[in-house]
Amino acid sequence: MQPFPTLFVDLETVHSNIAQMASRANELSVEFRPHFKTHQSKAIGRMFRDFEVSGITVSSIKMAKYFLNDGWDDITIAFPANVLAVNHYNDLAAKCSLKTLVISKEVVQKLDRELSRELGLYIEIDPDYGRSGISISDFDTIESVLNTINESTHCYPAGFYCHAGHTYQARSKAEVTAIATKALDKLSLLKERFPDLPICFGDTPSCSVLNDFGPADQISPGNFVFYDWMQVQIGSCSPNEIAVYMECPVIEKFEDRKQVLIHGGAVHFSKDSVQIGNYESFGEPMLKHLSSDTYIKRLSQEHGIIQCNQEAFDSINVGETIKIFPIHSCLTADLMRKYHTSNGQVLDHMNG
Amino acid sequence: MQPFPTLFVDLETVHSNIAQMASRANELSVEFRPHFKTHQSKAIGRMFRDFEVSGITVSSIKMAKYFLNDGWDDITIAFPANVLAVNHYNDLAAKCSLKTLVISKEVVQKLDRELSRELGLYIEIDPDYGRSGISISDFDTIESVLNTINESTHCYPAGFYCHAGHTYQARSKAEVTAIATKALDKLSLLKERFPDLPICFGDTPSCSVLNDFGPADQISPGNFVFYDWMQVQIGSCSPNEIAVYMECPVIEKFEDRKQVLIHGGAVHFSKDSVQIGNYESFGEPMLKHLSSDTYIKRLSQEHGIIQCNQEAFDSINVGETIKIFPIHSCLTADLMRKYHTSNGQVLDHMNG
Repeated sequence: MQPFPTLFVDLETVHSNIAQMASRANELSVEFRPHFKTHQSKAIGRMFRDFEVSGITVSSIKMAKYFLNDGWDDITIAFPANVLAVNHYNDLAAKCSLKTLVISKEVVQKLDRELSRELGLYIEIDPDYGRSGISISDFDTIESVLNTINESTHCYPAGFYCHAGHTYQARSKAEVTAIATKALDKLSLLKERFPDLPICFGDTPSCSVLNDFGPADQISPGNFVFYDWMQVQIGSCSPNEIAVYMECPVIEKFEDRKQVLIHGGAVHFSKDSVQIGNYESFGEPMLKHLSSDTYIKRLSQEHGIIQCNQEAFDSINVGETIKIFPIHSCLTADLMRKYHTSNGQVLDHMNG
Repeated sequence: MQPFPTLFVDLETVHSNIAQMASRANELSVEFRPHFKTHQSKAIGRMFRDFEVSGITVSSIKMAKYFLNDGWDDITIAFPANVLAVNHYNDLAAKCSLKTLVISKEVVQKLDRELSRELGLYIEIDPDYGRSGISISDFDTIESVLNTINESTHCYPAGFYCHAGHTYQARSKAEVTAIATKALDKLSLLKERFPDLPICFGDTPSCSVLNDFGPADQISPGNFVFYDWMQVQIGSCSPNEIAVYMECPVIEKFEDRKQVLIHGGAVHFSKDSVQIGNYESFGEPMLKHLSSDTYIKRLSQEHGIIQCNQEAFDSINVGETIKIFPIHSCLTADLMRKYHTSNGQVLDHMNG
């Protein structure tokens, strides 16, 4: 038993999750350009090679460098271009086909002045999610940015990139489908206007649930490689598709309030949570019966407090360990910085 | 300007924060046993040597090892004992005066069976905070655990450890004082019953605000070394006492919703937040005027969205950087894993 909080990965489930998404992409005729921000692992990245993946997606320049060093040479940094980091784009673009996102023509112009290499630019489209991008209906601004790219010396239009992150508000496959379909319907109008440019779409809920990607030509989901307890709530997957879990020592039990103290806190799980009915969960214990009244109720730096029903409370013992599904596998992996397998292997993480 | 999110520390402010807390401890006649979980830095730890600090507090076995390796030899691991990690306690206790916390006699007995070295045990007292410890009024259980420690072969009673974490719910010095005083009043009864055992008290809000520690003999605050925007809300400090800030590139501006996109997300700041009036803040931009309507509104993995008032929006420029006070400096430092100073030094962090 692990004496400290430890992150485990089940590689069979990872393989099956990748196979399923690759097969969906193939059947639905979209290019599969998986996002590697969830696993951030060369070893896990290599598993995608078996599925003819050659183009990948990352969320930072640092991550692009990490995977370039493992032989990936067609990389999209799915984050709007940072004009302070042009030297890094030049370095990367000298060694691979590099693409990133843009939103404004001012940024395209600033980039172009300092670029010495060719850089593909996806115009980021905001599908009414409200985080980043040009509004999906603002064709004038989109056209203006596209013209600026076409007029530039070093940039070329790679297409449109659209992350429908508001599918995370869904709590059923039907709700995911409704949100994603609304975005895809609007993207169809964009496709009519700019038929030659590929559209890259794809958060994990949409990509796990939709049976038609409409005008999208590419998908770039990331979280599906592991899934997590949040994705179960959204409707993207079932618990047996979650490929990572934390193993944490049970430190003490508090009979009066039916709570269990584990070693496993915000520096291990992250502080992401999901609202489930009346309670806010920071992690789901993998007990014999998964139950809505047994969950991690609070986290501080190193402490985790599991609220239990009576059966769960009785089944947990001090001096043993407990397995827990993380709420958000991307952030938990980012903090844990390596992966253990049940047969004793240790896999890399970029932060390790 | 930094092209990536970067954590800066102002060592003059750190020095002043330490000096002030050491001076308070001295004036109020308590031993200063600072918690090192916030900075997790050997370089910053050494600054405490100037204030005659010799006993320190940490939150994990890993952290105890880190500071033992820098010459600290009186270390309390302020987390309840983990019976799966007895070998680690033996290793540490062979090289320093080691103390940790216990809550139940079963754990004392399990530890004692496997210990080969002397281990000091603080009985953890829960001051109606509800996270961990024996209820502050449950003298029978406290006495029973104390007897078990006294009967053990390898353990001795180090005292009582009491973390009044519910002071974090306060929003003024008066509220901090009210919560802390209530806990100290109850600890006075404990002191009457067990006069020979030292009481260690001290979250940062209490230690920053109280002018009398009552029955407490020791204090072990940690966050005060840096403070943060949450501590400003609580009433522990003023903004100019915050010793760390993030510097983040400004990526894009969204005029229609008065929002600014920065590179700086959950993997940099952590997802801790503080409710301020009607909004939930994930970070406070250090603009000319600190204002309640300009704050980090949301974080995803790499994205931060600053909601601005008009003046703030107009003052922020794409291609520059923006300085931001973190909500919870412990978790931000834990993620950033090193500290930069304004004169180009880089200081260590345990995770680096």
